[in-house]
Amino acid sequence: MSERYRVEPGQKVKLSKWDPAETGEFDSKGKARKAMQNNLKRLAKLEYLLYAESKRSVLIVLQAMDAGGKDGTIRHVMGPLNPQSCRVTSFKAPSAEELSRDFLWRIHKAVPAKGEIGIFNRSHYEDVLIVRVKKLVEKAVWSKRYRQINDFERLLSENGVHILKFFLHISKDEQLKRLQSRLDDPDKNWKITPADAEERQYWDDYVAAYEDALTQCSTSYAPWHIIPADAKWYRNLAISEILVEAFEGFGMQFPKPAADVASIKLK
Amino acid sequence: MSERYRVEPGQKVKLSKWDPAETGEFDSKGKARKAMQNNLKRLAKLEYLLYAESKRSVLIVLQAMDAGGKDGTIRHVMGPLNPQSCRVTSFKAPSAEELSRDFLWRIHKAVPAKGEIGIFNRSHYEDVLIVRVKKLVEKAVWSKRYRQINDFERLLSENGVHILKFFLHISKDEQLKRLQSRLDDPDKNWKITPADAEERQYWDDYVAAYEDALTQCSTSYAPWHIIPADAKWYRNLAISEILVEAFEGFGMQFPKPAADVASIKLK
Repeated sequence: MSERYRVEPGQKVKLSKWDPAETGEFDSKGKARKAMQNNLKRLAKLEYLLYAESKRSVLIVLQAMDAGGKDGTIRHVMGPLNPQSCRVTSFKAPSAEELSRDFLWRIHKAVPAKGEIGIFNRSHYEDVLIVRVKKLVEKAVWSKRYRQINDFERLLSENGVHILKFFLHISKDEQLKRLQSRLDDPDKNWKITPADAEERQYWDDYVAAYEDALTQCSTSYAPWHIIPADAKWYRNLAISEILVEAFEGFGMQFPKPAADVASIKLK
Repeated sequence: MSERYRVEPGQKVKLSKWDPAETGEFDSKGKARKAMQNNLKRLAKLEYLLYAESKRSVLIVLQAMDAGGKDGTIRHVMGPLNPQSCRVTSFKAPSAEELSRDFLWRIHKAVPAKGEIGIFNRSHYEDVLIVRVKKLVEKAVWSKRYRQINDFERLLSENGVHILKFFLHISKDEQLKRLQSRLDDPDKNWKITPADAEERQYWDDYVAAYEDALTQCSTSYAPWHIIPADAKWYRNLAISEILVEAFEGFGMQFPKPAADVASIKLK
């Protein structure tokens, strides 16, 4: 799975060439259910090992268009994980305190500790996405950020943080359907604002900004994955599968006891 | 459940009068399973409502003797919650930076935001427990902390934080059994250190310190519950039940939409 959806370093991304509706080998949710359950079970064990070992951490970055499914991914894929070693940070509009530092300052503070899984719901990539589309800073500023991000992510990676980045790729029609359901369902009304409707007019600008970020910031040490996300169940399955593949690749083991166990006498 | 295990304000706690092995109406794990599943399901819905509403937060404080089951409680009761709105803070020995402030400084930083559930794995109560037992500060200092804690918790409570405190009550024999299994099971060896064996000699001092904390710091706005915790399944059930009771008492509702929904036109 990982290989299938990973952007290779140097690969130029054209999102129109990535099908947001495909569902791999699976033609229905039912058939995928067993694979999904199996992945979640393996993930729970691997997470426990990560925590026990406390030698490395995992940073999962989630980015998507509005209604792209970031919250749903967290609920369904990361929800079953142990909250003790799993921390979600949602990056909203920066505060005055954050704006008076460089854009990576608040990100750095949220980096997961050894043994932890950190999940970024939005991230430093907003600083080359909405910030670029809405012209919140000059091009001279944001255009340097791709390199700054790569340098920063390399620092983390060289210090034990495994970085996995997921772009949840939905079609413009699927977004319309999802926003419409927030209008139609009274229990979902609280989620929608006029800004959601306005943002849709910037769709193409966002696509261009995402293409640049995905092209320039997919590295061997912090790869981007473009996940077909029109079908929520397939999105969840694909991400859980890629996480399992990555965690299994770490070759983790339970740590040796801190002391000679035989010498410990309990009374 | 809440009433059954709650320490009433002013009630003097003698732990020997609280049976750590009782299992309420349930004589086996099997019969409790359905009640537990039902509680977790209700809790997931209530948590979503808390998050949607974003008007209040919940702070859950877990304290126990070593091997008392804090980690297990988090895994089984809070594990199924959505990590997006649920944050665990584990308080270890304070850092130099933390020690150079008052003992509540690092606690205050970790208070959950509106819409969030904060879980403290150990807490400011360590500052009247291990700190008192191991004489890390003078009595003149720690003896003032009960009032300071009550004042601090009242501040939080008056600002929308619902505080629920749980002491996981195990017997000294049950602790021995659990520590022994960490010695016997190679996969659990990493969890044990010689300090665990040494700490047992302070059991009675810890009991006395807990009795004072439970007696002096159970308030109407931040009650302590003494949970029978020898049977892990009953501990989980009781805590989940008390959480459901508390959450249902908030009278939460989905928020009204931020704008006139009818005026939003999607294209």
